[in-house]
Amino acid sequence: MAELKKIVLIPDSFKGTMSSAEVCSILSRQIRLRMPGAGTVSLPVADGGEGTVEAFLAAMGGEKVPITVRGPYGEPVSAFYGLTDGGHTAVVEMAVCAGLPLVGENRHAEKATTYGVGQILADAARRGCGKIILGLGGSATNDGGAGAAEALGIRFLDAAGKPFIPVGATLDRVASIDTAGLLPQIRGIETVAMCDVGNPLCGPQGAAAVFGPQKGADRETVALLDRNLARFADTIREELGKDIRSLPGGGAAGGMGAGMSVFLGAKLQSGIKAVLNTIHFEDRISGADLVITGEGKLDAQSLGGKVISGVAARAKKLGIPTVAIVGDVGDHVEPVYDMGVTAVFSINRIAAEFSVMKARCRSDLAETMDNVLRLILAIPG
Amino acid sequence: MAELKKIVLIPDSFKGTMSSAEVCSILSRQIRLRMPGAGTVSLPVADGGEGTVEAFLAAMGGEKVPITVRGPYGEPVSAFYGLTDGGHTAVVEMAVCAGLPLVGENRHAEKATTYGVGQILADAARRGCGKIILGLGGSATNDGGAGAAEALGIRFLDAAGKPFIPVGATLDRVASIDTAGLLPQIRGIETVAMCDVGNPLCGPQGAAAVFGPQKGADRETVALLDRNLARFADTIREELGKDIRSLPGGGAAGGMGAGMSVFLGAKLQSGIKAVLNTIHFEDRISGADLVITGEGKLDAQSLGGKVISGVAARAKKLGIPTVAIVGDVGDHVEPVYDMGVTAVFSINRIAAEFSVMKARCRSDLAETMDNVLRLILAIPG
Repeated sequence: MAELKKIVLIPDSFKGTMSSAEVCSILSRQIRLRMPGAGTVSLPVADGGEGTVEAFLAAMGGEKVPITVRGPYGEPVSAFYGLTDGGHTAVVEMAVCAGLPLVGENRHAEKATTYGVGQILADAARRGCGKIILGLGGSATNDGGAGAAEALGIRFLDAAGKPFIPVGATLDRVASIDTAGLLPQIRGIETVAMCDVGNPLCGPQGAAAVFGPQKGADRETVALLDRNLARFADTIREELGKDIRSLPGGGAAGGMGAGMSVFLGAKLQSGIKAVLNTIHFEDRISGADLVITGEGKLDAQSLGGKVISGVAARAKKLGIPTVAIVGDVGDHVEPVYDMGVTAVFSINRIAAEFSVMKARCRSDLAETMDNVLRLILAIPG
Repeated sequence: MAELKKIVLIPDSFKGTMSSAEVCSILSRQIRLRMPGAGTVSLPVADGGEGTVEAFLAAMGGEKVPITVRGPYGEPVSAFYGLTDGGHTAVVEMAVCAGLPLVGENRHAEKATTYGVGQILADAARRGCGKIILGLGGSATNDGGAGAAEALGIRFLDAAGKPFIPVGATLDRVASIDTAGLLPQIRGIETVAMCDVGNPLCGPQGAAAVFGPQKGADRETVALLDRNLARFADTIREELGKDIRSLPGGGAAGGMGAGMSVFLGAKLQSGIKAVLNTIHFEDRISGADLVITGEGKLDAQSLGGKVISGVAARAKKLGIPTVAIVGDVGDHVEPVYDMGVTAVFSINRIAAEFSVMKARCRSDLAETMDNVLRLILAIPG
């Protein structure tokens, strides 16, 4: 009979049904019931979008800092960021002041600004943090991060030498860039942008073409935005000697990925890598008997840079088995085992379509966890 | 790391998709692949219907005895039965000579006879076996076992004292019963009828009312058959002093359950109990680390007298964990754990309706088995 002492829970969200935090909560409750002697460590995984700050604070502790900054169209919005790791690390989700939920149906990617994000970053930097995690998910903007850069002290000037705050529609008017005024406290801070897309800044796979439509851009506006991002990249190359056109992920969040890279030296990192590094994952799983991860659908895509493979690879290095509890199991997922996943269990307990399964996913998840635990308890050592 | 030495496979069929033997074959192949050091014992479970003889022979070895006997309407049919346990036990499935597949669309329960079944029983008895297992599934008959009794030497006489072979339509004409001619070799043989229904011989839950329609009986014929079975029971009580009206399961197979009970002293036993007793289940699982059972749907019905609960209860007594791998998991099945089931895993690995899942059930079964094994292998002892 195998009694486990420590179980680490680090699932992705089950897209469309349960957040990572909710999955953690269901799993840990079941473990307390079935295996009361086992301690659990819940590490809900942030994806860079809404809930990112909450997830980091849940995993690491810390405080939520309220702050009022400019919203997508310049209006004041009540936003927040997280301070964790004893104040060393700030966690920012750009969606709180530049996100789609703020604009509702009034979506105009060509007018929206990331200025408020820069204000948050500045506030965090002034507090003396040494690292900033910036979640890029859910943005309503397409300004190449120019607004945020402006808020941090960088000046964009037009051909007449007049400073302005560029947005998607006006990025082409940037003629020169003055970085001298960049906030001193932000220099030298390690900035990591969480980014799970590899899209380049512009072109057919670029920010405007791929993500513009969901931000309200019609065909003509997409073309304008794409052209302006390209022009902006050219200006940056001429002015700063840096090429952001070819940066994988540069097109994330309307070019915010590229902008943060060039103006702050931010690293673009997959969400799970950023999470695992920031929460000191190896320390957290030290001495664990089992890691449990999961996601809504395990498929061939999950094999690269996603939560399950990222978690399993690191747990494997420490010799800790990782069980994946997932919604659906796709085809051709055999490589996950080599990546370190011990076993994969689907929560589907009857044959029925997704609309039916969605309604019962919480109890199915609990039951599946319960039966995995029952099996573990019964196995002769 | 838990390495298992011996795994016993004893699943029910997955109704509508896979036979018990096929499930055994898929599971054992997966065990060979994942855990080459583990020996497997495959015990496909017979349900009393088609395939019962094959299942017993697969579990115990033995030979198939071909025999030509009378079919449902008296025509000669090529039938067979099994001899196992060193010739001590005969296994007979009545469907081979009195089954629905033999009559096709020409279903007439009121005319069909179990005479051929009696011929098979007689042949087995003459060979000197000490025990007969009789599977009652899939019958086309409603003769109260009178045909089989006749073939074994019992004489049914009408009011004029004229012997005849009663069928459903003529059971009411039996006026007296002469058991003197019963085949001597069949006396004293332990006869077990596999029977998973509790229906009484007659009445609203009786053989004719419940099973008559699927054997081609319209409303009037059902009434006739029911009346005649009741009359036959009365005659038996008057002639032999035995009451078969209240016998649970007496209504199985058109009254064959009741007939075998009264004429041969057969015990009516749930299929799984008959199987477990006959295959000496406790001996077969001796030294096993794990028992794997399963069925198409685990639900509240499975809790009484079905394969999973029957298997688990006996394995539990020997302290051997039992994992159930099933199609669907119904609601309110928690009592199975108390009955001895260690854990239940569904083979459903995506959310889709049954028609989709049916097409992929074999690979889903293999994958589910594989992941259970992977988990077992990884669990720290």
